[in-house]
Amino acid sequence: MAIKVDHIGIATRELAEGLAVWRDTLGLKVAGTEEVEEQGVRVAMLELGDTHIELLESLRPSSAVAKFVEKRGPGIHHIAIEVEDIQAALAELRNRGARLVDETPRIGAGGCLVAFVHPSSTNGVLLELVQHR
Amino acid sequence: MAIKVDHIGIATRELAEGLAVWRDTLGLKVAGTEEVEEQGVRVAMLELGDTHIELLESLRPSSAVAKFVEKRGPGIHHIAIEVEDIQAALAELRNRGARLVDETPRIGAGGCLVAFVHPSSTNGVLLELVQHR
Repeated sequence: MAIKVDHIGIATRELAEGLAVWRDTLGLKVAGTEEVEEQGVRVAMLELGDTHIELLESLRPSSAVAKFVEKRGPGIHHIAIEVEDIQAALAELRNRGARLVDETPRIGAGGCLVAFVHPSSTNGVLLELVQHR
Repeated sequence: MAIKVDHIGIATRELAEGLAVWRDTLGLKVAGTEEVEEQGVRVAMLELGDTHIELLESLRPSSAVAKFVEKRGPGIHHIAIEVEDIQAALAELRNRGARLVDETPRIGAGGCLVAFVHPSSTNGVLLELVQHR
């Protein structure tokens, strides 16, 4: 089902704090930045091998990223896995009793189809499925 | 400095719980399992694209992984980045004022040279540097 790690999502208080680590210290190239209004985040994508580091900054206190940072401080937020067919992947997860945050895919960063699986189903890991179009 | 994501470390209460997710549900292949006595963990490495998911189970209550699970429950523990020259990478991080957990590299899973950087220097992310030999 899983093809590769699409990206690793990292929650920051401000993108600048994450960029100081991943761009300035570790030398990663910024592939792009954008706002994903629906999820209430500003995103910076950095290239690392065949995957990406996704830095996240909250746009509003009610966003999932704001709540994560409020509770735990900045840090690793989720792992996104690229799948070929996100509908089939969600059906398989549902069959295995997984608790889905998104029953149907929605549009995420870069215009991909995305869906989140609840950490209670995945041994504590917030998992995002991504299908590129 | 960074070449690629070498692996993503995930803390579990028992490897079996992580394998149920990553091997049985997501279909990843187990590349190998081993005990890293020095770090007090049992490790299962699973292949995912050009990187790996590293499942960790504590061998004793005093290990860093046991303390992590005790405090937060199972979940994403660290990101490991492959570098070409770990000594040079540590020197660069030191010059930039990073707080190093390991001042000099030690032997990690698979016989690699590894060194951890403290999350207080890396915006909340426990970062492992890995040099393959």
